Amino acid sequence: MGQTFPWTRRDLLGLEELTSQEIVTVLDVAETFVELSERQRKKRTNLTGKVVVNLFFEPSTRTRTSFGLAARRLSADVLDFTPSSSSLSKGETFIDTAKNIEAMGIDLIVVRHSSSGAPHLLAQHLQCGIINAGDGAHEHPTQGLLDIFTIRRIKKRLDGLTVGLVGDIAHSRVARSNIHGLLKLGAKVIVCGPPTLVPATIGELGVEISHDLNAILPRCDVINMLRIQFERQRHGLFPSIQEYARLFGMDSIRLAKAKPELLLLAPGPINRGVEITPEVADGPNSAILQQVTNGLAVRMAVLYLLCGQPGEG
Amino acid sequence: MGQTFPWTRRDLLGLEELTSQEIVTVLDVAETFVELSERQRKKRTNLTGKVVVNLFFEPSTRTRTSFGLAARRLSADVLDFTPSSSSLSKGETFIDTAKNIEAMGIDLIVVRHSSSGAPHLLAQHLQCGIINAGDGAHEHPTQGLLDIFTIRRIKKRLDGLTVGLVGDIAHSRVARSNIHGLLKLGAKVIVCGPPTLVPATIGELGVEISHDLNAILPRCDVINMLRIQFERQRHGLFPSIQEYARLFGMDSIRLAKAKPELLLLAPGPINRGVEITPEVADGPNSAILQQVTNGLAVRMAVLYLLCGQPGEG
Amino acid sequence: MGQTFPWTRRDLLGLEELTSQEIVTVLDVAETFVELSERQRKKRTNLTGKVVVNLFFEPSTRTRTSFGLAARRLSADVLDFTPSSSSLSKGETFIDTAKNIEAMGIDLIVVRHSSSGAPHLLAQHLQCGIINAGDGAHEHPTQGLLDIFTIRRIKKRLDGLTVGLVGDIAHSRVARSNIHGLLKLGAKVIVCGPPTLVPATIGELGVEISHDLNAILPRCDVINMLRIQFERQRHGLFPSIQEYARLFGMDSIRLAKAKPELLLLAPGPINRGVEITPEVADGPNSAILQQVTNGLAVRMAVLYLLCGQPGEG
Repeated sequence: MGQTFPWTRRDLLGLEELTSQEIVTVLDVAETFVELSERQRKKRTNLTGKVVVNLFFEPSTRTRTSFGLAARRLSADVLDFTPSSSSLSKGETFIDTAKNIEAMGIDLIVVRHSSSGAPHLLAQHLQCGIINAGDGAHEHPTQGLLDIFTIRRIKKRLDGLTVGLVGDIAHSRVARSNIHGLLKLGAKVIVCGPPTLVPATIGELGVEISHDLNAILPRCDVINMLRIQFERQRHGLFPSIQEYARLFGMDSIRLAKAKPELLLLAPGPINRGVEITPEVADGPNSAILQQVTNGLAVRMAVLYLLCGQPGEG
Repeated sequence: MGQTFPWTRRDLLGLEELTSQEIVTVLDVAETFVELSERQRKKRTNLTGKVVVNLFFEPSTRTRTSFGLAARRLSADVLDFTPSSSSLSKGETFIDTAKNIEAMGIDLIVVRHSSSGAPHLLAQHLQCGIINAGDGAHEHPTQGLLDIFTIRRIKKRLDGLTVGLVGDIAHSRVARSNIHGLLKLGAKVIVCGPPTLVPATIGELGVEISHDLNAILPRCDVINMLRIQFERQRHGLFPSIQEYARLFGMDSIRLAKAKPELLLLAPGPINRGVEITPEVADGPNSAILQQVTNGLAVRMAVLYLLCGQPGEG
Repeated sequence: MGQTFPWTRRDLLGLEELTSQEIVTVLDVAETFVELSERQRKKRTNLTGKVVVNLFFEPSTRTRTSFGLAARRLSADVLDFTPSSSSLSKGETFIDTAKNIEAMGIDLIVVRHSSSGAPHLLAQHLQCGIINAGDGAHEHPTQGLLDIFTIRRIKKRLDGLTVGLVGDIAHSRVARSNIHGLLKLGAKVIVCGPPTLVPATIGELGVEISHDLNAILPRCDVINMLRIQFERQRHGLFPSIQEYARLFGMDSIRLAKAKPELLLLAPGPINRGVEITPEVADGPNSAILQQVTNGLAVRMAVLYLLCGQPGEG
């Protein structure tokens, strides 16, 4: 891959900021990395000598591991910096912590934080690249990109597809990144969940709102089953897990009412029997494990574009 | 090492499954890695581009570190995946967690789990290689292999040797792996400990049972002092630490009654003054630290055979 | 850097043991690494095949990360060994733990411990190199070296400079390493803090003692603001944080009374508004972030001298 792709951004903060052409560039680069991973020698040297730091203020294994593996495949050095073991407990500020990390000669910081906008704050104060790995209920752009990449790989297009996002739309950064990306690439998006978990204002983004999965299901080419966070139930946002599963879960009876080639995504980790039953999760419509595999390629693409291209400093 | 060794297994689950020839192959490959580590440049490239994941559901530093170093010496990328920080706490199943890890393009999973058979379960459901790094009271094959390797390096043979395994036989996966491996290679095995810690059924494996260390000591060429887990005492399985040390510990007075060239092993970490006194642990009969050094070579051998041989995919 | 520098030590335990020539050698090697890090390709191969273990018995991110990055830049393999997850909890002794780590073929152990002298104990019992990354209130030699390196880079000399160390002198290993190093290189050192935090015996090292920052400030070319550990207040060693900040903190009003080119250091993490106000910390006199950057170069220099030189085994 001596090829240079058009890219000018130093940071990846959200899909809201990206143009449709930029999103397509990420998908195209990811495509080359999927092909690469199928070959014998998986290692590239594009990021040799670069240092990528995972700065995760919320626990995560899946996303952190995926970024770590993606960076290593490009020969970067990777450091996991977990705030529990860090200077934050000694009273240092968030920005000071990040500036100190940067001063060690870091090239990219992958940050997850419970506050929306935390990655943007870092991007304003630091010179190194920042990748948002999830900020509050705002965005999780690489998850959005890998969902969209998985759809494009399987459906061969995005334009004109109808994609249903099902579940807790209100608190989901995955939903928000999907919405921004899918709409830019010409898909129709329907968000669907209990009224307490679907804010009315989300319609302003240009999506259709539904509270009835059975009603929208036959129109959908893709359904993305968002993860239910059980702590929401304590706050009275949905009646019971059984009730949720009955109305918004996917089982083989409900699946039978969908288009036969319906593509089922779930960002995981899934609660088997809640959002999705085992036979559906492991069935032919599901692309759950492909999403994980594609996540690696998408994150390699983002790392490559942000600091691994030939001539990149 | 362009040489190819005969090997067909994708997984290493236990010494019970291996043929004597397979065990000898691991020992022979380990021998080449010991020689390698004595040379200036210790790094090999056999596993370049391969990814090894340490998936430890029980705390471990020694074994995890040894596998991690072994993999790095062969130029693999290594990831430590600890379930406390993982998706398991979010309700994901054991198999789903492992399948998700595999989907990131992993080549080998090194797994430790408190349930006997957990690595076998993974091997049934996953395509990547599985190495058992200890499952319940079942097996700990690389520990067994490194014990046997250490005996062979020092005694120059295994056939015809008498090996005593002393301590908590009932709960020891190390004992079980030693028994399977040693018997296959022609050694005689005596298990020795308090009756509460030596199940009568263990005789069915083909070992002699004793409850009197003084009685068997003069016949042994090798004694492997198993680690005492103090929590067993709470369950009334042995009377007191002092009593245990008096009957089954090794001190210089007892050692004087053994063959002069008795080889003393201990899988560690040792409780100085319980299983073994400091002067014996650090004395000429002890090979405790050689076991650690050999462990690295044995684990490199296992990694090499499972996925590092020329032509390996 | 095929160049060989004069160096015979296997360990770096403290600046007290080093000759002025040895300190200058570290600073000179660090200088070459600063130049290196400004170039495109940051990676060196001097420590390929070497293994560096971070053995930290006190929590640390900053120092541990800096050593880890320094080692990786020289292509060493790095292992973080944290005692909480280790065999220590199983009753193994400190020396046994370290000997077991060494037996895995480790080349260097970077150790932090709450007991003064712990690294010296390891150096006595082990064959591999030992780097003290902070032992009790004794020494933190790489922090001392990076402070001195930062002064030399900016002031272009050390001989004849007056350096004030401000704060908790009694409990500061950073102070002690600074004192030994600075005095050997010809600087004058004034220690300054509340009487409860400045032991009278420190004068025996050859430093001037003061309890009045305003009085000594105009004479200083450099001020190193030591970190205040709030738990000292509970022990009644200083009256209140406000009182401490008023007497020994650095703000722009106090700074105005210093030489205009005063160089301000702080080992970090800083408590903004306590030892130093934000506008001063981020102002032109402060070299706080340069210290972090220089720390990487200094640690690369130490690793290089201890085991990365051509012909090094």
